[in-house]
Amino acid sequence: MRPRFAFELSATDGRARTGTIRMQRGDIRTPAFMPVGTAATVKAMKPEAVRAGGADIILGNTYHLMLRPGAERIDRLGGLHQFMNWDRPILTDSGGYQVMSLSDLNKLTEEGVEFRSHIDGSKHMLTPERSMEIQRLLGSDIVMAFDECPRADRPRDEIAASMEMSMRWAKRSREAFDTGGEHASRAALFGIQQGALDEQLRRASADALIDIGFDGYAVGGLAVGEGQEAMFGVLDYAPGQLPTDRPRYLMGVGKPDDLVGAVERGIDMFDCVLPTRSGRNGQAFTWNGPLNLRNARFAEDDGPLDARCDCPTCTTYSRAYLHHLQKSGEMLGAMLTTEHNLAFYQSLMQAMRDAIGQGTFDAFANAFRGDYLRP
Amino acid sequence: MRPRFAFELSATDGRARTGTIRMQRGDIRTPAFMPVGTAATVKAMKPEAVRAGGADIILGNTYHLMLRPGAERIDRLGGLHQFMNWDRPILTDSGGYQVMSLSDLNKLTEEGVEFRSHIDGSKHMLTPERSMEIQRLLGSDIVMAFDECPRADRPRDEIAASMEMSMRWAKRSREAFDTGGEHASRAALFGIQQGALDEQLRRASADALIDIGFDGYAVGGLAVGEGQEAMFGVLDYAPGQLPTDRPRYLMGVGKPDDLVGAVERGIDMFDCVLPTRSGRNGQAFTWNGPLNLRNARFAEDDGPLDARCDCPTCTTYSRAYLHHLQKSGEMLGAMLTTEHNLAFYQSLMQAMRDAIGQGTFDAFANAFRGDYLRP
Repeated sequence: MRPRFAFELSATDGRARTGTIRMQRGDIRTPAFMPVGTAATVKAMKPEAVRAGGADIILGNTYHLMLRPGAERIDRLGGLHQFMNWDRPILTDSGGYQVMSLSDLNKLTEEGVEFRSHIDGSKHMLTPERSMEIQRLLGSDIVMAFDECPRADRPRDEIAASMEMSMRWAKRSREAFDTGGEHASRAALFGIQQGALDEQLRRASADALIDIGFDGYAVGGLAVGEGQEAMFGVLDYAPGQLPTDRPRYLMGVGKPDDLVGAVERGIDMFDCVLPTRSGRNGQAFTWNGPLNLRNARFAEDDGPLDARCDCPTCTTYSRAYLHHLQKSGEMLGAMLTTEHNLAFYQSLMQAMRDAIGQGTFDAFANAFRGDYLRP
Repeated sequence: MRPRFAFELSATDGRARTGTIRMQRGDIRTPAFMPVGTAATVKAMKPEAVRAGGADIILGNTYHLMLRPGAERIDRLGGLHQFMNWDRPILTDSGGYQVMSLSDLNKLTEEGVEFRSHIDGSKHMLTPERSMEIQRLLGSDIVMAFDECPRADRPRDEIAASMEMSMRWAKRSREAFDTGGEHASRAALFGIQQGALDEQLRRASADALIDIGFDGYAVGGLAVGEGQEAMFGVLDYAPGQLPTDRPRYLMGVGKPDDLVGAVERGIDMFDCVLPTRSGRNGQAFTWNGPLNLRNARFAEDDGPLDARCDCPTCTTYSRAYLHHLQKSGEMLGAMLTTEHNLAFYQSLMQAMRDAIGQGTFDAFANAFRGDYLRP
């Protein structure tokens, strides 16, 4: 019988780790990249192609799904997995980040966040308890605690107060999750560390979360505009503040070189809209750096997007064709570029897992940066 | 060795016919529906899915491709088949219809049409000779003669003069095509009958085309707003004016019930943007008539789009999910609905081919209309 949640580390190399998370709906190889399926779809992709690209788990967004089509409706339709035809694990965020960044007229209190939908202006309330309920209705496999994510450039006392409230919300999330009956017996709950760029606040947040106890721990509040150097600065210590035997998830990250630098610092899980959003905009990621397919220099380039990639896009189509599709605004351009970008991200994760297993992560990371950042 | 072009009729039932067109790049089962790949892509579809849906041949648009990415560019990149990854037959239209309907400031003379691109305003000239050259550069398998298509409600003398010019253009097209060297030895050329709704003009046009001699004959100038009754009125006599032993192609048609009525009247080939365009707009075709997936009544409908359809969309997803995707403006909604619509069109063609082969076309057509028009 498959476990509810088990994290088995198979190798470490410096601070980098590789292993497997075992859950009821399948294994997740770590370090893992989770494609983002905001509105019950990884944009421009069929789920079988997401899986074929190498994804073990995808992410769904509580904020978007609670507004459209609604958590109760998805529950009545058999849950998010059946609704969108993805039978492997799904991690859902808590809605805390997006309710503050996307909604209108939000009002933050100790109880939670009152807000108006960005879609139709309807009024909603999101609390730790409601977030847990929504994630249960969706049938989430990895549930995220409800938190608040302040801007990293706010005064320290604001960051501290926000973090402390997020820790009280984490405890309420834990208690609400644990009353979820059958769902709690097969799903996992992750806590989210806050504290912005302050090592002491990060320490206090980690200790509070550990005291509550979670299946995994996210490093939250990064990738919000602080820049890679500041982010890596936090990652130099934050993962070490969290339990070694639990997965560490860096939320909302990132660019390929962000992923490599974060794995180097002990991160196990990532999610980001970058490969999918970029695919729709004509930006492609390759082992030799990103490129903009709309650039006129690709108009007669009959070579593959990335000669080192074996995804369907790279083995079938030319850069000239992808350029034409992107310039013409054709959906197939978004479809093929997204498929490549996701395959590239998953290949990068696999290459990191292999390098960690072989004890050659430093060499891999340096070679990657040489090709990717200075092609 | 495969023939350049052979049309083998295997059965007739009343005026309806079924058979096979054999060409260098593959067989085309008739009656055939050709998905439209305007800009070197059947919108929102991968070519392998177009094929899996049952298409033997697709259509490409001379007007769009000459403007972007350009015929000479496609030639340098190995031709349209390689460019877009479709190795079966492609029929290209002549550009005559679209240059008049889509371009700006077009000027029509005996020589051809001078016009400005609707994309960038650049100036171009399309003549029978240039149209043949472009279709050769694209590597078209079935080349259409260059013609003019006037509105059916113009005075008879205008319709007659236009038809007569189109017949002179058909002769110039034939002569230009025949100088195409290697391409002419493996491609086919179709003439296009004009004459709007006038039986005598249609007769004169057919006779002129037969005198020139073509591999197949299109009925042009219909599906331009005259309505189904008027169209069927022309189809009651026009196919009989064309050679029995050559394919008859009704351009730009149509709705499912148009196809059934046209096959009933002796048509062998069709193309139309309806299944693809409708798919992007949330309109789905089913054996029980069309439906609008954006309608709120589908929000919690967990049944398949069409219970009689075995396409990937119908066997995998619910109407509720498709409704959600269409309401959310998600590309996957366009992808899945287009895939179904094309599969439905091809299933309809297969059902007609089967019924003709079994001598039961009348019963099939009546049953179809009963389910489709009065569900």
